Amino acid sequence: MEMTAFKLVEVTDEEVDEIEARYGPLAEAVRHLVDATIRSRAGDDVVGAAVEQIQEITAQLRADQVDGAAGVNYNATGRAWNWGNAAVGLRNAAAPPMDVVHDADGRMHADVLLGAAYEGPPGCVHGGVSALLLDHIMGVTASGMNRVTLTGTLTLRYVNPLPLGDVRLEAWISGEEGRKVFVDATITGSAGVALEAHGIFIIPRWSGDFEAVVVNDAGPT
Amino acid sequence: MEMTAFKLVEVTDEEVDEIEARYGPLAEAVRHLVDATIRSRAGDDVVGAAVEQIQEITAQLRADQVDGAAGVNYNATGRAWNWGNAAVGLRNAAAPPMDVVHDADGRMHADVLLGAAYEGPPGCVHGGVSALLLDHIMGVTASGMNRVTLTGTLTLRYVNPLPLGDVRLEAWISGEEGRKVFVDATITGSAGVALEAHGIFIIPRWSGDFEAVVVNDAGPT
Repeated sequence: MEMTAFKLVEVTDEEVDEIEARYGPLAEAVRHLVDATIRSRAGDDVVGAAVEQIQEITAQLRADQVDGAAGVNYNATGRAWNWGNAAVGLRNAAAPPMDVVHDADGRMHADVLLGAAYEGPPGCVHGGVSALLLDHIMGVTASGMNRVTLTGTLTLRYVNPLPLGDVRLEAWISGEEGRKVFVDATITGSAGVALEAHGIFIIPRWSGDFEAVVVNDAGPT
Repeated sequence: MEMTAFKLVEVTDEEVDEIEARYGPLAEAVRHLVDATIRSRAGDDVVGAAVEQIQEITAQLRADQVDGAAGVNYNATGRAWNWGNAAVGLRNAAAPPMDVVHDADGRMHADVLLGAAYEGPPGCVHGGVSALLLDHIMGVTASGMNRVTLTGTLTLRYVNPLPLGDVRLEAWISGEEGRKVFVDATITGSAGVALEAHGIFIIPRWSGDFEAVVVNDAGPT
């Protein structure tokens, strides 16, 4: 199993809060810029100036940056964070982002607003974006936030188009068998249920090492 | 079937080229900004100023913009474009992007560089990002760029982690049966084949109307 490890770092909860308060608004601003880049009708002057300014801002941000990706880190209090995660990363402007909510009975749901950057068929969510979000919430559901699970098999049945806008994901464990966890999920939009998903997740034999630290949705989905 | 239609617009090929030459570099600059937003270690001063500047740039781009998403448009020469597409959109900074290459025998492949914005497990590509890219290339393969197909069922088998970096997708038609098209695909990274996928795509009965215009990978995947 070749995989970069979860990393224990010496950062206090207060420092994590500070960094999130600094970079959350930046990611949100960049998200709007991504949307505007798709939808703008501005001419060469405005766009050319924008490119130069964005390159300058990027250079300033990069003057001090981590090598490679953000990784998944945790600290001594057991707090974990995955700022670059493609589905839920707080600092990832390419992520919608998605906030996974734990319901009382082990079910999970997430309400996500999907705009112009998530389009596939005209006016509809890209089927692969639905797959991305389903994969993530199903992994979180399988892990129950207190164990490591890896995706084994994912089956997606596309039953209806999913118009862009507000969508709801729901996921629940439908069974367990040894190291296998079965998860069902749906994604629903303004035209009804768009996808039905079934997943088989595996609890790896090495997972005991991490069970204590994976206390939030920073799991390896 | 509730779906916004493909739209015939009065834009010449030259105008499409001009718009792509203007906005392609903008999307590329924003892609680097997305990466820097995840990886930067800059402090409050730099990040605060960046937020303000980005909001200003976004406002200028939005001063004249289309309503809603970009859609999938085509012109009288049969050229089609889907600038906002979540997998391949030229103006979508959240897309890697992916260029699908047609091989001689109906097979398709794509080489994609996946950086910090596509992370799931530490140092690895998010399983859902693999699903997104596979869904897209498989849809393009099913359509053969000359007919409309819709995703019916997608089954993904995760066999190995996929380290961030260069990955290769490959897809081919494994069979056809009436209005069903069967497509197989893989995604391979530096640790070998990471996912094997099988999809069933449907040729909708209304597809005849669009067959003439879907001449590139702007299909409804």
